[in-house]
Amino acid sequence: MRLLLLPLAFLASCASISTTSLFGGGDPLPSWTNGDLKASIVRFVEGATDPESVHFVPAEERIAVFDNDGTLICEKPVYSQLAFMVDRAKEYVADDPALREEEPYRSLMDGTFGSTMDIDAFIKLAMKTHTGMLDEEFVAIAEGWLASARHPDLDRPYTELVYAPMLELVAFLQDADFQVWICTGGGLDFVRCYAKDVYGIGPENVIGSSTQKAYREIEGRGEFVRLAELVTPLNDGAAKPVNIDRYIGRSPILAVGNSDGDLEMLEYVAQRHARTLTLLLHHDDGEREFAYDAGNERALSAAAEGEIEVISMSRDFGTVFAPAP
Amino acid sequence: MRLLLLPLAFLASCASISTTSLFGGGDPLPSWTNGDLKASIVRFVEGATDPESVHFVPAEERIAVFDNDGTLICEKPVYSQLAFMVDRAKEYVADDPALREEEPYRSLMDGTFGSTMDIDAFIKLAMKTHTGMLDEEFVAIAEGWLASARHPDLDRPYTELVYAPMLELVAFLQDADFQVWICTGGGLDFVRCYAKDVYGIGPENVIGSSTQKAYREIEGRGEFVRLAELVTPLNDGAAKPVNIDRYIGRSPILAVGNSDGDLEMLEYVAQRHARTLTLLLHHDDGEREFAYDAGNERALSAAAEGEIEVISMSRDFGTVFAPAP
Repeated sequence: MRLLLLPLAFLASCASISTTSLFGGGDPLPSWTNGDLKASIVRFVEGATDPESVHFVPAEERIAVFDNDGTLICEKPVYSQLAFMVDRAKEYVADDPALREEEPYRSLMDGTFGSTMDIDAFIKLAMKTHTGMLDEEFVAIAEGWLASARHPDLDRPYTELVYAPMLELVAFLQDADFQVWICTGGGLDFVRCYAKDVYGIGPENVIGSSTQKAYREIEGRGEFVRLAELVTPLNDGAAKPVNIDRYIGRSPILAVGNSDGDLEMLEYVAQRHARTLTLLLHHDDGEREFAYDAGNERALSAAAEGEIEVISMSRDFGTVFAPAP
Repeated sequence: MRLLLLPLAFLASCASISTTSLFGGGDPLPSWTNGDLKASIVRFVEGATDPESVHFVPAEERIAVFDNDGTLICEKPVYSQLAFMVDRAKEYVADDPALREEEPYRSLMDGTFGSTMDIDAFIKLAMKTHTGMLDEEFVAIAEGWLASARHPDLDRPYTELVYAPMLELVAFLQDADFQVWICTGGGLDFVRCYAKDVYGIGPENVIGSSTQKAYREIEGRGEFVRLAELVTPLNDGAAKPVNIDRYIGRSPILAVGNSDGDLEMLEYVAQRHARTLTLLLHHDDGEREFAYDAGNERALSAAAEGEIEVISMSRDFGTVFAPAP
C-alpha cells in the first residue's frame, strides 16, 4: 500500500505551497502524505496563528482535543487498557483458581469475553483492576504492565503503537501555541501514565473516565484511596462535550476522533466557532494497521454529510506507526 | 492599624534584600508589607525559578492553587455566590408570592436563612438558582448580577472586593511560569464568569463545585442543559486534594487558603514535595476588612503547629482591596 501511495504523495507535494511555510521551510507534518487534507490542516493552523489573517485566533482560545484509543494509538484487536484488565484478571485467577467459575473470569479464560462484552461484567472487571488500592499502587501496577506488555499481533509495546502523523500534529499544534488536550473514554490515570512521555501531553490536559477517590490519612500521610464508584458521566459520546466544558470551559477550535463515541465532540466543536477543524480518522488500511468500520458508522455517515473531514489512513498517513524510541 | 504598621514595614524593608531582585529592581509585591512573610514568598519563587538553585523546579511542575472566597476575594458578610442566590430567591418570591410559605424562601424573607443554614434548604436554593436552564442562560443571569450587585457594607461590586496583594501574587507567579489554579468550594461556572477578567486565571484553571449537565440537541444546536444533580464530591475539605488530582494530576508546590475547608489541600501540598509554600490568610483586620476565626479554627491550629505559614491581613497586607478598575 505504501509503494502505491508514493507517486501520489509526490504529485501532491508539487501542488502544495503552504505546507512548508509555517516553520521556515521545514515540513511540520512529514509523515502525512501531501494532499488536500494535509494542506487543509496546515492552512487552518496558519490562519489561526497569523495576526494578519481574518482567521486569527488568540492563543488562549487555540484549543485542540484528541480522542485517544483509535485516534492517537492503535486500539485493535483490543485497546491497551482492556488488554491490561485481561492480563490482570488472569493473574487474579492464577492466585485464586475459584474465580474461574465466576464471571467475568470464566468468559475471559474461555476467550469469549470480547465477543459477549456484558457491560456489567466489564464494569466489575474495571473496578477489580482499578480500585481498592492506593493511587500510587495503581500507577506502579499500570506502569509495570505498560513497560512489559506487547501487542499480540505487532509484537511491540502498546505505547509504541502510536500514529506518527498524530504525534507530528500534536507537536505542530503545541508549537503553534495550541493547548492540546486528550479527551478519552479510557481511564484518566491509565492514560496519564504514558501521555506525557509518548505524546508530550501533561496530566493536566487529560480528560478521561475515572472512579471516585477518597483522600485519607494513612500512617501520617494523606493518600488517595481508589473507590469502586464511577465518576459520572463516563467520558464517551455526549459526555465528551460535557467534560470538555467542565475541564476546559472553552470550546475547542479543533477536534480529532475516530469513532461514534467521538461524534458529539466533533459536532460540538464544529458548531461553536465560525471556523473549526474537525477530523475523523478512518481505519481503512488493513495492510499497515487494521481496517474496520464497526462502531464508527454514525461518525462516518456524519462526515460524509457535514463539516467533519475524514483522515483516510491508507491515503493520508505516509507512515503509520512512530519508530521505536 | 495601618499607621501603626508603617514603621515596622519600613524597618523590614531595610533588611529585605531579595524582594526586589527577581524583576530587575521592581517590587513584584508592592501591596504586601515588607517583612518575613513577603521575603519568604519571594525567596520561594526565586528558588523555584533559578536553574542554579538547589530549589529549582521545572516550569511544568510549578503549580499553585488558590482557594477563592476569603482567599482572593472578600467573603463577609456573605460570599458573592450566596448573595446571588438570595437575590435570585427574592425575585422568585416576587414572581410567585406563594413561595413565601416554603423553605428556604420563608427563612430568606425573614432574614434567618444565614443563621440557620439548613444544608437541605441550601442545596434546594442552589439547585433552583443554578439549574433547569441552559448554560448560556445561566451565564447571562450570573454576569448580569455580577455587573449590578453591590456589597452591602462596602458599596462596591463584589468582584472589586478582591485583595490587591493576592492579585499581585497571582501575577508574580504567572510571570514566573507557574500554572496558577483556583480550587474553590464555590460554583465552577459562577467563578469562571469573572476569574479571567478579575484574576487573569482562565476557565481551564478553575476547579469548583458543579452540577451535572446534559448535552442535548435543541433546535439543531448542541446545548448544555443544567441538571439538578451535584457532581460529587463537592469541592471542599478532603475533596480539594481529590479534585486537584483529578483535574491537574500533579501535586502543587504552592497553596493558599483561608479556612478549614482548605486545610486538607494545604496539608496535601505540604506533604508532597521537599519544598513547598503553604499559606493561610488570617482575617484579623476588622478595621479594613472583617475579623473572624469562625470556620477557620482547625486550619489556624494546624498553622500554629506545622508548616503552614499564616498571612496576617493586618500585618502583611499593606493595601487590602485592589483599586477600582
